[in-house]
Amino acid sequence: MQALVFDGAAAHVLDRPDPTPKSDRAIVRVAWAGVCRTDLELCRGYMDFRGVLGHEFVGTVVDGPDAWRGARVVGEINFACGRCALCAKGLGRHCPTRAVMGIAGADGAIAELVSVPIANLHRVPDDLADERAVFTEPLAAAFEILEQIAIERGMPAIVLGDGKLGLLVAQVLDAAGARVIALGHHAAKGAILAPRGIETACAEDYAGPRAPIVVEATGTIAGFRRAIDLVEPRGTLVLKSTTHSREALDLAPLVVNEVTVVGSRCGPFAPAVRALAAGRIEVEVLVSARFPLARAVAALDCAAERDALKVLIDCR
Amino acid sequence: MQALVFDGAAAHVLDRPDPTPKSDRAIVRVAWAGVCRTDLELCRGYMDFRGVLGHEFVGTVVDGPDAWRGARVVGEINFACGRCALCAKGLGRHCPTRAVMGIAGADGAIAELVSVPIANLHRVPDDLADERAVFTEPLAAAFEILEQIAIERGMPAIVLGDGKLGLLVAQVLDAAGARVIALGHHAAKGAILAPRGIETACAEDYAGPRAPIVVEATGTIAGFRRAIDLVEPRGTLVLKSTTHSREALDLAPLVVNEVTVVGSRCGPFAPAVRALAAGRIEVEVLVSARFPLARAVAALDCAAERDALKVLIDCR
Repeated sequence: MQALVFDGAAAHVLDRPDPTPKSDRAIVRVAWAGVCRTDLELCRGYMDFRGVLGHEFVGTVVDGPDAWRGARVVGEINFACGRCALCAKGLGRHCPTRAVMGIAGADGAIAELVSVPIANLHRVPDDLADERAVFTEPLAAAFEILEQIAIERGMPAIVLGDGKLGLLVAQVLDAAGARVIALGHHAAKGAILAPRGIETACAEDYAGPRAPIVVEATGTIAGFRRAIDLVEPRGTLVLKSTTHSREALDLAPLVVNEVTVVGSRCGPFAPAVRALAAGRIEVEVLVSARFPLARAVAALDCAAERDALKVLIDCR
Repeated sequence: MQALVFDGAAAHVLDRPDPTPKSDRAIVRVAWAGVCRTDLELCRGYMDFRGVLGHEFVGTVVDGPDAWRGARVVGEINFACGRCALCAKGLGRHCPTRAVMGIAGADGAIAELVSVPIANLHRVPDDLADERAVFTEPLAAAFEILEQIAIERGMPAIVLGDGKLGLLVAQVLDAAGARVIALGHHAAKGAILAPRGIETACAEDYAGPRAPIVVEATGTIAGFRRAIDLVEPRGTLVLKSTTHSREALDLAPLVVNEVTVVGSRCGPFAPAVRALAAGRIEVEVLVSARFPLARAVAALDCAAERDALKVLIDCR
């Protein structure tokens, strides 16, 4: 099969052996895959990953149990052991011996075929198009916030960052009843939210009130600092992007204002699939470009451009 | 009256005018005051404070409403407006226009007399000695954790830091039913907890399991880093001391492991007074030294010594 492989130095589209069928696995023929910021970081050495990239996909089961064969599916990316204490608590996404598709110890989905544990599969409803369904994984990451904190109707929530994740988070919090203010740097990206009645503002210019909920989705230390400034005393700061500070960082305001910082990563697929099927979340407008699998290296370059949102790869 | 005054350059015991009686205030004749690490930081420029130091005290009301006159009291240190949105929510400790006794905009209690809003007073039961009651304020800070997170019986909790605050936090969590492991650097300090059945270990040597609750009470960035390493996925890290990182700090594990960081500061006096009166918390053993008010500058020096725990000042 053809696949986008990172070899430790660069990414290439290569011919690779097809994945081997196993009893607890399905082989999925990938229709569409998405490029995530994490893929770009893996190509800069993050996680010391080698193998097939990609963890956002939709496809059709071509090998596996009869009940799944032919099903159109998306798949959760954490391959848990199913036996440890965390798995027993339903926290397989934190299983200490997990592999993570296209990130750690498991080949990814920017390929013609991908092997996925059957336990990780979710069926895609007939009326949910592939190019929407491929957003399930990043949208689930936005839904994770609702698993972790309670949103009261009308509660103000500031979302920092108008990248893909920020735009999904703003929509999910809006749909959950929050009064969202989305702060970003790109008027064009903010304009995606305005038709949905979500307030947007330029991050630098915003001088409005603080909020009980602030979501940091810029992935920068400047964003984290701003989030600390924008959250009310006793408020909640959701840290949605992995951030590394190479500079001084004053944590005292977290203590003085008794802020709760909630780290938030992968989320539940079921509500994301439902929201996509119901048309509650706008995703088509987030697609910056589509590339065929043969040009997946160019797709990575495109996704790295400053103004890019989601880049999709046609693996059919 | 005599008082310990920080003038912007150094602390001195000076003669100062007695506080002026006001309708919403009580004048308290201070019996004992305690020295807090914050007092030492104020003397290094923190908060740009000028005035009488001290925010831990017990004393007797000598001027104020009849109902309070003659009462033995402790007093909460945040002087709230009582009218803003945060005060209306019962969060006067976060009132944006608050003064803070001996820290910001209000004279403190290392003095013969201190002026305290009547709303901030708590009566001291007859059977609670002054030298125990003076621990109410720091003990309330430890009790604040119970206001913010739920402790289940038998739940492991690691407390990092064997200073005054760490030793109080360890006891409060133990009394609340947690299975506490207290990590520190000083065997002598750890020995205070052992007779109470609290497990202690040297912070460097500890190689035991991670815990769902970790309290950072060292006030150092190294402690914060260690706390991140010691908290379980989906666990809670309570940040009990104000910390400033001048070095690189990797926040990615907070996101990957979906840790919740809870900033925690001043706490409720009522449960602290009850616990002290009931003898549930050991505090006498935390007293490193006692000084008369006239020698309060020496008391600050003593409190700054590496092995010092609580230094009390006799203001009678």
